[in-house]
Amino acid sequence: MTRAAVFGSGSWGTAFAAILADAGCEVVLHARRREVAEAINADHVNAGYLPELVLPDTVSATDDPAEAARGAELVILAIPSQTLRTNLDSWGHHLPAGVPVVSLMKGIELGTGQRMSEVIHEAAGIPTDQVVVVSGPNLSREIAAKQPAASVVACSDISTAEQVAQACAAPYFRPYTQTDVVGAELGGAVKNVIALAVGMAEGLGYGDNTKSTIITRGLAETARLGAALGADPATLMGLAGVGDLIATCMSPLSRNHSFGVNLGKGMSVEEVVAITSQTAEGVKSCRSILDLAARNGVDMPICTGVTAVVEHAMDVRQLGDQLMNRPHKHERH
Amino acid sequence: MTRAAVFGSGSWGTAFAAILADAGCEVVLHARRREVAEAINADHVNAGYLPELVLPDTVSATDDPAEAARGAELVILAIPSQTLRTNLDSWGHHLPAGVPVVSLMKGIELGTGQRMSEVIHEAAGIPTDQVVVVSGPNLSREIAAKQPAASVVACSDISTAEQVAQACAAPYFRPYTQTDVVGAELGGAVKNVIALAVGMAEGLGYGDNTKSTIITRGLAETARLGAALGADPATLMGLAGVGDLIATCMSPLSRNHSFGVNLGKGMSVEEVVAITSQTAEGVKSCRSILDLAARNGVDMPICTGVTAVVEHAMDVRQLGDQLMNRPHKHERH
Repeated sequence: MTRAAVFGSGSWGTAFAAILADAGCEVVLHARRREVAEAINADHVNAGYLPELVLPDTVSATDDPAEAARGAELVILAIPSQTLRTNLDSWGHHLPAGVPVVSLMKGIELGTGQRMSEVIHEAAGIPTDQVVVVSGPNLSREIAAKQPAASVVACSDISTAEQVAQACAAPYFRPYTQTDVVGAELGGAVKNVIALAVGMAEGLGYGDNTKSTIITRGLAETARLGAALGADPATLMGLAGVGDLIATCMSPLSRNHSFGVNLGKGMSVEEVVAITSQTAEGVKSCRSILDLAARNGVDMPICTGVTAVVEHAMDVRQLGDQLMNRPHKHERH
Repeated sequence: MTRAAVFGSGSWGTAFAAILADAGCEVVLHARRREVAEAINADHVNAGYLPELVLPDTVSATDDPAEAARGAELVILAIPSQTLRTNLDSWGHHLPAGVPVVSLMKGIELGTGQRMSEVIHEAAGIPTDQVVVVSGPNLSREIAAKQPAASVVACSDISTAEQVAQACAAPYFRPYTQTDVVGAELGGAVKNVIALAVGMAEGLGYGDNTKSTIITRGLAETARLGAALGADPATLMGLAGVGDLIATCMSPLSRNHSFGVNLGKGMSVEEVVAITSQTAEGVKSCRSILDLAARNGVDMPICTGVTAVVEHAMDVRQLGDQLMNRPHKHERH
């Protein structure tokens, strides 16, 4: 029985702990707050995030990172992107050597422009052939309901990817292996920003033609950034690219999408945060993605527009007009 | 002022006539039934298809194909795929020589396995460098409401594509030129079948993770067929591929999607037709697409499953199980 440690007890960390358990692993879930860990051990439920999911008996929780890491043959990280480095600085030395470390995170670090796998490598000293990215159309609440889903498991070392795929293959969760780590990570990071744009369009009253066009052009700008960073364009046509993007953009369960709808209705970021008490990942990542694009000479008009709206440099109504009124051209230029 | 003739007064033909008029063309719309043509001329509305769209004064209608074609500098065909050849056999000789002929149709001809542009070339003798395909995320009712939309205008001769793009560039309709006719047509034809599969999944009670996975894997099988027929995979990542597919799969306005939902709930094709009095294009095209794939040695598991359900060879509940339970593998194999 593989022993897995999952760091991060938000929606996705908790749902992934259930996947691992249903795939036959023994799982220790690390929660930052002691009362959350105790409640999970007592009730087998993480009431704050996925109250409808009863965790299998093979999932236990702790607030002690050393205890969570002890004896782990597989480590999973599901921590907010912008606090990953601080977390690893604090307890990364507890992680056992020589085991795969899986990133479930979707973002780009502000300031450094690093992908999460790069932060894991740099901050915790994990060799790149042991850093694995899992990404795909995986809305946590549907996973918790054991709806069938598929995902990409990417690692530069295919045998490590296969080992992780084996460990998380549950009856309702179908992993596909990949070696394109950059493509898998970029798809997941940029889609949150595109989902904000699609939400804004919806909030402004636009229909499915407009929204599909934004998704398609968003995919094109993600692929351009990917090409500049060495990703395979085919990855962005797959589950971690278009698949994740569609799930996020079509689902009313997506935080980024809902956040965008409120921005489209004319609210400011601060007003949306005030009523939802959450900031969407795309709001936090748009500036770092734009910086990364600029550093690589890539034009990303949708990310540029979203960032301008988020940073109060542009009215949301201007964004739609601007995206539809650029000069006609060949589709690929 | 360009004079354009639009053959076919269904939803898309009528909406496209409005686009052309709003782009500055003088448009004659051909309706098969005289009373439809007379009503359009009297009321400027095609009440049977788009009752909410008031057509500009520069759109007139006729039931006489010779009159519609007379003096046309641009011909548009928006006729049901499986009757295109019969129609062209009957009045194709009226089409003026040397002008672009645009296909708005999305299907593959049963028996021959031909794309619509091939049927136009063969049945009406139009040179291939004058046959143009317009395809993208263009739900007719949203176009009629003048919601912003974009589309691909594809022709082997780029200057012909540019001429057509110029003629149909309206404030709410943004054309992108392309030379990949095969890719543009395949995207449009196969998406109807994928939309049926997504509808079936929804009817069976599956959520957005599952639906996104079906869309992504459907795009992959479309790209495989495209590659075998000489299409550029990048076209299928664009508006005529993923864009059109997403619009069709996410919209409650899509006939194929709604038809699939009813099949997913356990109704037979005949029962759905009985309550909706319409057959979805994907129901008519799935067999021809599958034959085309078989002829080219391409495996299309989603199209195979949909065809089996449509032809009563498989229960719809088996389809979902079958698609999720194939062996784990590398994403690209």
